[in-house]
Amino acid sequence: MKQSQLFTRTSKEAPADAESANAKYLVQAGFVDQLTAGVYTYLPLGLRVLRKIQNIVREEIDAIGGQEILMPGLTPKKVWEDTGRWDSIDVLFRLEGAGNKEYALAATAEDIVTPLIKQFAQSYKDFPVLVYQISDKFRNELRAKSGILRGREFNMKDLYSFHLTQEGFDEFYEVAKGAYLKVYERCGLQAIVTKASGGDFTKKFSHEFQVETEAGEDTIYIDKETGEASNKEVVEEADWDNTDKYEIKKTIEVGNIFPLESRFSNAIDFKVPDENDHQTEIIMGSYGIGPSRVMGSIVEVMHDDRGIIWPKSVAPFAVHLISLSSKTDQKKIDGEAERIYKELTKSRVEVLWDDRADVSAGAKFADSDLIGIPLRLVVSDKTLDQDSVEWKERASTEMEMVGLGDIKAKVEDWAQA
Amino acid sequence: MKQSQLFTRTSKEAPADAESANAKYLVQAGFVDQLTAGVYTYLPLGLRVLRKIQNIVREEIDAIGGQEILMPGLTPKKVWEDTGRWDSIDVLFRLEGAGNKEYALAATAEDIVTPLIKQFAQSYKDFPVLVYQISDKFRNELRAKSGILRGREFNMKDLYSFHLTQEGFDEFYEVAKGAYLKVYERCGLQAIVTKASGGDFTKKFSHEFQVETEAGEDTIYIDKETGEASNKEVVEEADWDNTDKYEIKKTIEVGNIFPLESRFSNAIDFKVPDENDHQTEIIMGSYGIGPSRVMGSIVEVMHDDRGIIWPKSVAPFAVHLISLSSKTDQKKIDGEAERIYKELTKSRVEVLWDDRADVSAGAKFADSDLIGIPLRLVVSDKTLDQDSVEWKERASTEMEMVGLGDIKAKVEDWAQA
Repeated sequence: MKQSQLFTRTSKEAPADAESANAKYLVQAGFVDQLTAGVYTYLPLGLRVLRKIQNIVREEIDAIGGQEILMPGLTPKKVWEDTGRWDSIDVLFRLEGAGNKEYALAATAEDIVTPLIKQFAQSYKDFPVLVYQISDKFRNELRAKSGILRGREFNMKDLYSFHLTQEGFDEFYEVAKGAYLKVYERCGLQAIVTKASGGDFTKKFSHEFQVETEAGEDTIYIDKETGEASNKEVVEEADWDNTDKYEIKKTIEVGNIFPLESRFSNAIDFKVPDENDHQTEIIMGSYGIGPSRVMGSIVEVMHDDRGIIWPKSVAPFAVHLISLSSKTDQKKIDGEAERIYKELTKSRVEVLWDDRADVSAGAKFADSDLIGIPLRLVVSDKTLDQDSVEWKERASTEMEMVGLGDIKAKVEDWAQA
Repeated sequence: MKQSQLFTRTSKEAPADAESANAKYLVQAGFVDQLTAGVYTYLPLGLRVLRKIQNIVREEIDAIGGQEILMPGLTPKKVWEDTGRWDSIDVLFRLEGAGNKEYALAATAEDIVTPLIKQFAQSYKDFPVLVYQISDKFRNELRAKSGILRGREFNMKDLYSFHLTQEGFDEFYEVAKGAYLKVYERCGLQAIVTKASGGDFTKKFSHEFQVETEAGEDTIYIDKETGEASNKEVVEEADWDNTDKYEIKKTIEVGNIFPLESRFSNAIDFKVPDENDHQTEIIMGSYGIGPSRVMGSIVEVMHDDRGIIWPKSVAPFAVHLISLSSKTDQKKIDGEAERIYKELTKSRVEVLWDDRADVSAGAKFADSDLIGIPLRLVVSDKTLDQDSVEWKERASTEMEMVGLGDIKAKVEDWAQA
C-alpha cells in the first residue's frame, strides 16, 4: 500500500490520557482511535494486525479440532436466567428493546453455547464437541484502562469443550494448553502457564497465560524449586507466609483456560445416555484468548522510546519502503522505489511504501520507527549512487547496503525465515 | 471436512415459525440457529457462506479504493447527540453503563465515522476519503422477521465516502454502483438498480439494489419505455395515476447507496480549506450491503422444494462427496472416497465428505439436497463396479458416471469454470 493513500497519519504527540505504552503508541501511530473510554476503532494498520493475530489463533484452534461458529452480541435475558447469571455477572450490560424485551450484551458465551450444543449432541457418539468463535465481547467495567488491554468492548476467541468423561476433559485441557502456547510463540510472546483459582465453578485450578512486562498489572509467583508459576490469589491461599521461596514477576494476562465441570450443562439439564443408556453428565471447559489484548500486550513487551517493534508474524506490513526527496533526480528515486514495491508485492511480500512527496527524511524515519514495521528499506540519492538500497531491521541498530539486483531475493528469504 | 465430525445435523422438520424459505432451509440444514427473534448464531456451514460473501464484498470495495476499518458496536451517546440522531433514530438500542454513562448500539455509523475522518483529513489534499467496515449492526426492530433478512443484529458492510466537490461525489457514486453490481453478480444475484427517495438527507434520489423473488416484501416499478426502475414511494410521488406504464415486480432489497450531501459533516462543523484557503463543505455518501441479508436473499432466489441451491462462489463447500454403505466391500468404498477426498482437498477444492457409517443412502441424498452444495459425487458398490463416481450437480437433474482416474481433473476444471 502507498502511504500517501492511507487516510490515517501519525501524530507527534501522545494522547494526553495515555497511561500505557500500548495506548500511547497505538493511538499515536494510527493503529486505533479511542471512541470513548474502553472502546476503540481499529484503523487500517490496526485492523491488519488484529486480523493476523485472529488468524494465528484460528489456525491453532482449528488444528486441535475446534469448529468455528459465530454467536450474537445481543442475547436474550432468558439464557442468562437459565444459568443463574443474569444478576450475578456484575459487568453484564443489560438493555431493553421493543416489547419490553430484555437483553444482555455478550460478556462471555457459556450461557449461549451450552443450549446450542444441547440441541445437536444427543448421543454419546457425538462427543467430544469443540466449538469456538472470534467475536467482540462487551463488559461494563467500572474503569476501563490500559488502552486496548481492558476494554468495555474487546475482541475475544472463546472456545468451549464438551466431554463425557473426566479423562477426556483432562486430556483435551492439556491439548488446549499446548495450542495456546503455540499461539503466543507465533505472536512473539513468551507466555508463562500460571495456576489460578477455579473460582465459583470448580475446586480445581484454572490456568492463566501470563507475559512478563514492567507495565503488567498482575503479579505472578514462580516457585524457585519447581519452576511452577501461581497467581497471587493461589499463593495467598496456600503459602502466604513463605513468599521468599518464590521469584516474583509483573505480568499481563493474555489468556486463560477454565475447567467448568458440569456447572453450565447441569443448569440446563444437558445430559446424554451413554453406551449403557445411563444418563451422563456433560463436563465442560472454556478457553479464552483476546486478540485485541494480545495486540496490546505485544506493544507493551516490544517497543522502545521511538515506537513499536512488531514481530514479523503480526506486523501490519513486512516491509516499510521509504523513498526520500532527491536533490538531483526525483524521477530516478521514485522509479526505483516503484519497481521494488511492485516486485515485492508481486512476490506477496506486504509492503507499505512511504511515497509521500512533501515529507522530510527525518519525519519519514520517525514515522517508520513509531509504526514499527520489521524491515525498513530506504531508496535515496545516496543509496542509488551505490546502486543499492539501505536495509535496516526495526529491532536492530545495524544498517547495510543491498544491491538493487539482490534486494528481491534477500527480502523473500528474510520474509520466509 | 468429514461430515461425521460436523457437530450440527440437519433436521427433518422445518422450524414451526419459519415464514420464509431462508428461515426454513438455513435452520433445517444447520447453517444458522435462532437464539431469539431476529438474532441468529452462524453455525460452521453458515459461517463459511457468510465469510465468502464478506470476502467478495471486501474484494470489490478494496478494488475501488476503500480502506477497511472496524468501528465498535458500543457507542457513546455524545456522537448521536452531535448529529441530532439520539432521539430521532427509532430503532436505536439505548443502554446505560457504569457511572450512568449512556450508549447506543451501532445501528449505522455516519455519526461515528464523520468525526473520525475529521481528525485525519485536514487539507484538501487528503480527499477523497473512502472508508468501510464489515461489522454487526443492531436495530431495535418492532418486528424482526423473514429469517436472516431483517434481524435485530445483522452483518453489514458500510462504506462512507468524503468529497470536496459535487462532481467528485457524483463520479464516485457511479463507481460504487458498479462495484455493487459486481458483488451481486459474483453472488449469483441479478440486482436491479432502483430509484428511491433520498429521505431526510437529500432532495436527490438514493438507489436501492433489488432482486426479484416471489417472496419479496418490496415492490418495484419498471418503466416499460425507459427500463428505469423506481420503488413504490418514488412512483407514488411522481406518477401514481399512470401505473399501467410500469411493469411491477416483487423484490428483496439487497443494498442501498445514499447521497448524504453535507448533512453529517456540517453537523459537526467538518470543513477544510481548499487550494485558495476557503473553507469548503464536505460532501458525503453512504453505501450499504448486508452480507447476512445477501445470504438470505440467495436462499430465497435459489432453492427448490428439496433445499438450497448455492452458487459455487458462496457455497460452504464446492463438492459434497458421499460414500454409501456397501453390501460387499465397505473398505473399498471408504478407501476410494478417502483417496478422492484427499486428492481434491490437496488441490484446494473444498470438500464435505459424508463419511457417516450409519446413515442410509436416501437420508444422505436428502441431506445433500437440503444443504445445497453445488456438486455431488457418490461412491458406491454400483459406481465402483464401473470404476467410476456418480457426478450430479445440485442445479441439474442429470447424472453421469466419471472414471476414477478422471475425477480429479474434471472437478478442478469445473471448480475453476
